[in-house]
Amino acid sequence: MYGRGCFDQLDEIISPHRVGNQPMIFLVDHFFKNKSLIDRVPVRGLDKIVFADVTHEPKTSQVDAITKELKDEFGLISGIVGIGGGSTMDLAKAISLIMTNPGPSSDYQGWDLVKFPGIYKVGIPTLSGTGAEVSRTCVLTGPTKKLGMNSDFTPFDQIILDPELTANAPVNQRFYTGMDCYIHCIESLTGTYLNEFSKSYGEKALQLCRKVFVEKNKWDSECDDLLMMASYAGGMSIAYSQVGVAHAVSYGLSYLLGTKHGIGNCIVFDKLEEFYPEGVAEFKYMVEKNNIEIPQHITKGLTDQQFDTMINVSLGMKPLWENAVGKDWEKKITREKLRALYERL
Amino acid sequence: MYGRGCFDQLDEIISPHRVGNQPMIFLVDHFFKNKSLIDRVPVRGLDKIVFADVTHEPKTSQVDAITKELKDEFGLISGIVGIGGGSTMDLAKAISLIMTNPGPSSDYQGWDLVKFPGIYKVGIPTLSGTGAEVSRTCVLTGPTKKLGMNSDFTPFDQIILDPELTANAPVNQRFYTGMDCYIHCIESLTGTYLNEFSKSYGEKALQLCRKVFVEKNKWDSECDDLLMMASYAGGMSIAYSQVGVAHAVSYGLSYLLGTKHGIGNCIVFDKLEEFYPEGVAEFKYMVEKNNIEIPQHITKGLTDQQFDTMINVSLGMKPLWENAVGKDWEKKITREKLRALYERL
Repeated sequence: MYGRGCFDQLDEIISPHRVGNQPMIFLVDHFFKNKSLIDRVPVRGLDKIVFADVTHEPKTSQVDAITKELKDEFGLISGIVGIGGGSTMDLAKAISLIMTNPGPSSDYQGWDLVKFPGIYKVGIPTLSGTGAEVSRTCVLTGPTKKLGMNSDFTPFDQIILDPELTANAPVNQRFYTGMDCYIHCIESLTGTYLNEFSKSYGEKALQLCRKVFVEKNKWDSECDDLLMMASYAGGMSIAYSQVGVAHAVSYGLSYLLGTKHGIGNCIVFDKLEEFYPEGVAEFKYMVEKNNIEIPQHITKGLTDQQFDTMINVSLGMKPLWENAVGKDWEKKITREKLRALYERL
Repeated sequence: MYGRGCFDQLDEIISPHRVGNQPMIFLVDHFFKNKSLIDRVPVRGLDKIVFADVTHEPKTSQVDAITKELKDEFGLISGIVGIGGGSTMDLAKAISLIMTNPGPSSDYQGWDLVKFPGIYKVGIPTLSGTGAEVSRTCVLTGPTKKLGMNSDFTPFDQIILDPELTANAPVNQRFYTGMDCYIHCIESLTGTYLNEFSKSYGEKALQLCRKVFVEKNKWDSECDDLLMMASYAGGMSIAYSQVGVAHAVSYGLSYLLGTKHGIGNCIVFDKLEEFYPEGVAEFKYMVEKNNIEIPQHITKGLTDQQFDTMINVSLGMKPLWENAVGKDWEKKITREKLRALYERL
């Protein structure tokens, strides 16, 4: 469902999915604590609003803890509604799956490891760009890796795209998250994995990002409309394509330093002129035009061991490197080359 | 699912939806009788291939007859897989619904009249353009009207988009059906009902149509890829938009003369320079470039009563007229004006 104000149809939409007395859980980004959006959440009966602390990237331990609390308190629940940015989307998807799949969530980090459908889950993004509202994964940092639970059971049963909800996002955050969309489009459209489905969606998402960050001179409600569609189309484009160097390198930053995904991608992409010359030039133009600062020197003073950790995480993202550089990527992307790149960040 | 050759995954896709001994029904466009595609249909157990006679536009009586035959022969069935053009898609959707909703299908021509979900249904288009593979309707000619069963239960549970299946479509047919997509994009993008969701999809579909019919000089496999995505995107764009004058007028032709939807839209759009000056100019260019003939004088010799019938059907399409001409459309679209337009066709 897409449209301004359609959040108000949430009560009607989830109503047929309520099972007896079992509550509906609203997992809401803690950014909205004490904000007026909370009064519009259709809480009924045993329903509960749980605030998600998304200061850091979602962790498997966080998924397991929230799921345990819900099981202890309610036994069974009717469903979970995630309201927030990409981290909240991913947490909601993961909790839905761990409600019905036994064991810790880290067991399912990978591809097609999830065995059973999760409970009914709804995604309502309040920040546009990650595409987490439509993706087949939920990225989690676990004890040994940062990797999503990629499965046919991972996508939401319902998404509600109401551009009004993104109107008051912090300016920097909005830019970083919007750039996540831009960057993954550049990565997928220039990559070696692609078909016309993903190409069509990727081109559209890129065009919408450009309208917002290149053509527009002032943020207005149309920007919210456009960027929400960009995020959706960008997420759809991932179905048959793959991201590339910026994602592979920024996963290392996130794993070691907890750098959030959007800003991490910006920090890395800013230095990738070798791989994506036109994209990086346009990115720099958008950064300047939108008066945004990209953090510099964030790896200064790290130890050799810490650089090694990041390099290991990054080199583990094989499909991303193959997509970006080709089948013989291992010859081209040496540890030394990656170390030099990380030192520039 | 989208991809060259993905038709071969049909067996695997439908397998979890088989219920006990109940057969899967493959409703296949009669165009494929004795063609090699039939050997690739994964028939198992009691499964049956039913050829759909789509010489004329689908009728409610045809839906009721096929449904009755299936009920008489099998009682219950696991699901229905439609393989063909827009007519076959619409028949498959309608049969799925009438398997579980009592009474003749004409009872459900309208908006949100369907009460129960249909049986499991899969759409596999072999001709691109109508968007019937994703739409929320299935257009049927009934005893009193030509109107779809528009409902949340109407869309397919699964669609399989394999551009290889469209490779051998007859050239004229392919053009007319492709133009159905082009025309409904022009109608929706210039209309008064629209939001960014439908606009994004409509713009993309239009761009893909132009690549195929304006930019390309020869039909190749890329054209099949592009037009299949155009059809899908065009169908998605209808979610929050509406078609316009060409559809409203061509429904009258179909109702009276049985003119098929794609060619009917072309016959009408060819004369709509008053409403869509740029679109009609580009359409005429594509007709010429692709060496297609648009039938002329098809209403010659009709009686006053026959013209009145077409005018009545057309004026009944209120949302289409309102979208195209505005809320005061009834003042502008008089019976005389419509009569003059029908006489030019």
